[in-house]
Amino acid sequence: MKTYKDLNTSPRILLGPGPSMVHPRVLRAMAHPLVGHLDPQFVNLMNEVQELLRFVFETENKMTFPISGTGSAGMETAVVNFVEPGDPVLVCVNGYFSERLCEMSLRYGADLTRLERPWGTVFTPEDIDNALKAKPAKVVMIVMAETSTGTLQPLEEISKIVHSHGALLLVDCVTSLGGIPVEIDKTEIDIAYSGTQKCLGCPPGLSPITVGARALEVLNHRKTKVPSWYFDLTAIQNYWGDERTYHHTAPISMCYGLREGLRLIYEEGLSERFSRHQENAEFFWDGLAKLGLEPVVPLEFRLPTLTTITVPEGVDAGKVSRQLLDEYNIEIAGGLGAFKGKVWRVGLMGYSSSKENIVLLLAALSRVLGK
Amino acid sequence: MKTYKDLNTSPRILLGPGPSMVHPRVLRAMAHPLVGHLDPQFVNLMNEVQELLRFVFETENKMTFPISGTGSAGMETAVVNFVEPGDPVLVCVNGYFSERLCEMSLRYGADLTRLERPWGTVFTPEDIDNALKAKPAKVVMIVMAETSTGTLQPLEEISKIVHSHGALLLVDCVTSLGGIPVEIDKTEIDIAYSGTQKCLGCPPGLSPITVGARALEVLNHRKTKVPSWYFDLTAIQNYWGDERTYHHTAPISMCYGLREGLRLIYEEGLSERFSRHQENAEFFWDGLAKLGLEPVVPLEFRLPTLTTITVPEGVDAGKVSRQLLDEYNIEIAGGLGAFKGKVWRVGLMGYSSSKENIVLLLAALSRVLGK
Repeated sequence: MKTYKDLNTSPRILLGPGPSMVHPRVLRAMAHPLVGHLDPQFVNLMNEVQELLRFVFETENKMTFPISGTGSAGMETAVVNFVEPGDPVLVCVNGYFSERLCEMSLRYGADLTRLERPWGTVFTPEDIDNALKAKPAKVVMIVMAETSTGTLQPLEEISKIVHSHGALLLVDCVTSLGGIPVEIDKTEIDIAYSGTQKCLGCPPGLSPITVGARALEVLNHRKTKVPSWYFDLTAIQNYWGDERTYHHTAPISMCYGLREGLRLIYEEGLSERFSRHQENAEFFWDGLAKLGLEPVVPLEFRLPTLTTITVPEGVDAGKVSRQLLDEYNIEIAGGLGAFKGKVWRVGLMGYSSSKENIVLLLAALSRVLGK
Repeated sequence: MKTYKDLNTSPRILLGPGPSMVHPRVLRAMAHPLVGHLDPQFVNLMNEVQELLRFVFETENKMTFPISGTGSAGMETAVVNFVEPGDPVLVCVNGYFSERLCEMSLRYGADLTRLERPWGTVFTPEDIDNALKAKPAKVVMIVMAETSTGTLQPLEEISKIVHSHGALLLVDCVTSLGGIPVEIDKTEIDIAYSGTQKCLGCPPGLSPITVGARALEVLNHRKTKVPSWYFDLTAIQNYWGDERTYHHTAPISMCYGLREGLRLIYEEGLSERFSRHQENAEFFWDGLAKLGLEPVVPLEFRLPTLTTITVPEGVDAGKVSRQLLDEYNIEIAGGLGAFKGKVWRVGLMGYSSSKENIVLLLAALSRVLGK
């Protein structure tokens, strides 16, 4: 009979595109004994999680809660609730996760228009304006922080243009929320979702979503039922909202962890946290330059939370990543799709974003590359 | 500025319909630092989780893994992958969760036939045979252990009849897996799903699913793409299967917990575990009789994992549950739907199924009821 040993994984330093490292306080909260999902004490905790999510999203949106699945579940929730068969949808495609938005939209019957820009670049307000003039859309989907390329998409002007065309703005905030300002209300983002395993510093398993008044109006006037039962916001809102009607059993321990992760952000302060991410990223980029390594994305549109680095001529990207993992317990990632074999991806998110991790990575990289 | 205090919930004894109590070893595993979702060490852990799930499901099915969501996510995965628009589907309806199967099937365009029996009763093989003679179906859906009523549905004869009509048998095993034998291969169940927060003794957040060869053949010959991206088994199997292609980020910590929960079952032994659940249930039923309380379901079809109890005339069901929670930290639940206000539901599942919990509940019930 086979024996299964005690869990005994290596102490990895997680500097890839996520999961990032989880603060010991979050891990401790995860180990807390459970209460039931309808227990008044859990209902109170749900309220706190919602308040703290509104704080991080910088929104007053009532409909703000975690979807019971990973980041892609949040993406699917956003798509399935706001796209009905035949709806014209404009997706801004410049990376792996915007491709996923296309794929999901098509599955739910969207009349899809793809606005394409090369990987590693971003969209201008004029791009969107011209696309919407050529063909109006009900929803415009765009990724704020592309995990596959490391670009940071400016949204303020784009939001105005999208709304001037009467469309909804749906934004992927997976690699931004908790690491850089997302400012849902100020930017007037209608629908946004994220994941817990990036800048929120929690394990993967929940996907915070927020929906504004304009989008809620659209949701409440759907012509068809939301095809997905599990991701149906009109039903989930009755569990997370005032009614507390049972929908599905919330992942209790994950909510314990998320609350603690959000509490850490609340204690640190949003602007302090954003400064930490920015300063550490700059510190890392300085170090890269000294190693002769170059970020893919120009400074203006470069994400502080995730850096893509051009793999030098003649270097085997995968071999370097494997060596960092095997010899130094450091996880970074290679490229996806168009960037496969051509870039490394380094995440400095949440608890992972620290000077000591950066110095360690630079030192290890230097040795592995023989610099 | 509002302060958010340390997590400090009361030490609840969870004897409701789930979540059940979580073994300290599982909680400890949840607090283990994370590795990445594509780390070779995590890939190895995924293999072990799959092996252990096959052990508990009693199956050789290669496609056996946890869906990254709660039990209802497993239900939706089962429906969305095996029901195409216009497909004739027969759902056996005798409780809240079979209603949910109807709802999900309708959303995905099924040509639905409802075979109804009163809540608290089960289906005979003849029921199914007659229904399929009247109208053939592609998939027959049935709940093995109805969490809303406490019935245990015998499946062996039904499975033969379903297959003699050329249909697939889809079984909800949410409140059975790990508490009573499910015997996927012996019973020839084609598709089954469960939840981690019941008899597997883990927190809610994952939904184990298993799919047999006959169902896989149907999946591989779909006429349309699976509408849900997140629940698309044809893609998820490439992440959990040999290829290890990235699909979505698995909930690492939940997988740590599930592995430990399954390891506890493996150490206890399946037949020993089933005996414990059965013996403790009988011990509880004896105690109920002494209090003059009666289970709703006759012994022959009564689940050992979840007992529904008739609320005596003149007793306020909700008040009793609240008093048990407030004064004794014991959670039991009331009825859902047709059983609202009429029954209590007591779960004795996984780590919750112990003599000490039963004696405590009986003593507290006796005091609250003034017996």
